[in-house]
Amino acid sequence: MSEEPKNDLLLRALARESTERTPVWLMRQAGRYLPEYRATRERAGSFIQLMSTPELACEVTLQPLARFPLDAAILFSDILTIPHAMGLGLHFVEGEGPRFSAPLRSAADVAKLGMPDPERDTKYVMDAVRMVRRELADRAPLIGFAGSPWTLMCYMVEGGGSESFATAKAMLRDDPKSAHQLLDLLARSVTAYLDAQSAAGAQALMLFDSWGGVLTPYDYREYSLQYLERIVRGLTRSRAGRRVPVIVFTKGGRQLEALADVGADCVGLDWTTDIGRARKRVGDKVALQGNLDPALLFASPAAVRAEVGHILQRYGAHPGHVFNLGHGIQVGTPVEGVAALVDAVRELSPAYHAA
Amino acid sequence: MSEEPKNDLLLRALARESTERTPVWLMRQAGRYLPEYRATRERAGSFIQLMSTPELACEVTLQPLARFPLDAAILFSDILTIPHAMGLGLHFVEGEGPRFSAPLRSAADVAKLGMPDPERDTKYVMDAVRMVRRELADRAPLIGFAGSPWTLMCYMVEGGGSESFATAKAMLRDDPKSAHQLLDLLARSVTAYLDAQSAAGAQALMLFDSWGGVLTPYDYREYSLQYLERIVRGLTRSRAGRRVPVIVFTKGGRQLEALADVGADCVGLDWTTDIGRARKRVGDKVALQGNLDPALLFASPAAVRAEVGHILQRYGAHPGHVFNLGHGIQVGTPVEGVAALVDAVRELSPAYHAA
Repeated sequence: MSEEPKNDLLLRALARESTERTPVWLMRQAGRYLPEYRATRERAGSFIQLMSTPELACEVTLQPLARFPLDAAILFSDILTIPHAMGLGLHFVEGEGPRFSAPLRSAADVAKLGMPDPERDTKYVMDAVRMVRRELADRAPLIGFAGSPWTLMCYMVEGGGSESFATAKAMLRDDPKSAHQLLDLLARSVTAYLDAQSAAGAQALMLFDSWGGVLTPYDYREYSLQYLERIVRGLTRSRAGRRVPVIVFTKGGRQLEALADVGADCVGLDWTTDIGRARKRVGDKVALQGNLDPALLFASPAAVRAEVGHILQRYGAHPGHVFNLGHGIQVGTPVEGVAALVDAVRELSPAYHAA
Repeated sequence: MSEEPKNDLLLRALARESTERTPVWLMRQAGRYLPEYRATRERAGSFIQLMSTPELACEVTLQPLARFPLDAAILFSDILTIPHAMGLGLHFVEGEGPRFSAPLRSAADVAKLGMPDPERDTKYVMDAVRMVRRELADRAPLIGFAGSPWTLMCYMVEGGGSESFATAKAMLRDDPKSAHQLLDLLARSVTAYLDAQSAAGAQALMLFDSWGGVLTPYDYREYSLQYLERIVRGLTRSRAGRRVPVIVFTKGGRQLEALADVGADCVGLDWTTDIGRARKRVGDKVALQGNLDPALLFASPAAVRAEVGHILQRYGAHPGHVFNLGHGIQVGTPVEGVAALVDAVRELSPAYHAA
């Protein structure tokens, strides 16, 4: 399980080592924009069935790599597997996203929760990791992932998605003790869950703090960043003599310097930050991942190519850039746009990596 | 029309003059969270009817001032009156927001558009301004407003709201000439529209750049900021010897320094920026408006009061703060939360305005 992948561009870029070109993978690269994904999803019968059947999760994880020359696979799963394992009753309402049957509404609800055992309560995730690693062989590294404690808390308290997460935010103010108790439990659970993924074969890990950006700057530090740091510092960072790099990403986050200080190897950027200025702000402390606006994939392939060139040029000739979007690929994204992006990175980036 | 309002705290704060306390008003203070608004809306039959009937628009504009001791009224209207006057066929789908019957999809669609005459094509808005000023007498100043060109373009190209405005963004890349042509027309139209509002009696003006924050940093400068600046610099800034102050607000905007440079009197902040740091970043160039997270109004009144205290303390003892939310009041917001906010600003802010 610990051999070097033949394509180890991602791992070298995450270590800020020199590479021949900029590696590229795309958040939500396995997903509804792909016809082959929709076919497998149809066969599975439901999203829950798809994500919890290792054979199917493995199949869709590998689909984008069969279509595009990507430099990494990311496990197909959901950020809400941990709350699901805690007994909140995850289900998906067509066109409306995730829902929990038993959202948390009181200190008593929080007090009842226990920490899942990753190999027992989310065995389907670990089985999928093992299966993908087997199937992937050494073509590209596999990234495992989890949601951040604050992001999980948002869904667990609201009972689903929300425009403003007002109920979760109200808990921060009206019952900070329960909020911290919940976040602490989630941080410990996420640490164990990510450790289990790397033990099962994931060669890099990513933490998605999807809703850290909706907090005030002081709430972000107290309720999101603090727990990201605990997880990153608590993870097993070496497997069979090889470092397990960690990527952290706060969508809409504004505290880049602070996020670069949590101990991760790489910080993901959304598209509202200039990646060249971001590099100057954080120095060489971390690799940077991003940052093309996923909405621009709806423009013509020529425009996508121009935007890739623009981002590469702004980043310049430093090691430590992982090309990606600033957020996940959207439903309805033209496959040609994705192809144009991947091709453009492969064709335009070598100029910034002179030997 | 040009007498000083008895309560001119807002105008003095916008001029960075000293005040006895921090003035407070709230974006979307007239709206669905108020039972009296819902009653008038019911009577009107439709949102379009409500916004285009001056008597009704005037009535709902004044409702929040009857309930709370606010320091400004803001005209009840919609940011899409200009595209509506251009013939795009504005209508509202219950629970889904605004829609245009004739969205812009091509260079030809853009070329056909003409500039509306504010007093002819949006007379209902100007009549409402005149009526509110009459009814309001000198209790508080009236704020007129408009949407930013980029924000209007988003709705005009998409045909309504959107999660990502991918169609509008694609036009920026694939037909920048038409995009600039449209934005230029909108900038001229917004300038005339806001000038007409101040001529009709609005004592301050606000430009809502609701979707500037979804752009890349360079697109923001080219497609949004540039046009905000043209408008601000083109407006008639003095009426009957009195300055007409202008507030600009880019929701989710990250280029505070650049926004403070467009020539406006005040910059609105959402809640993801620390207002104390923002003050340091822009110096004394502009007043700052904001920046309580509207979602926090769902917390207990005690928590709302604590948050008000926190923001006042972070801002400190400088003139030039207009207390507000970081975005509009949400549907379902408890009226008690709003009352707690207004009371807290009145009670806690004098300490920062020692004579």
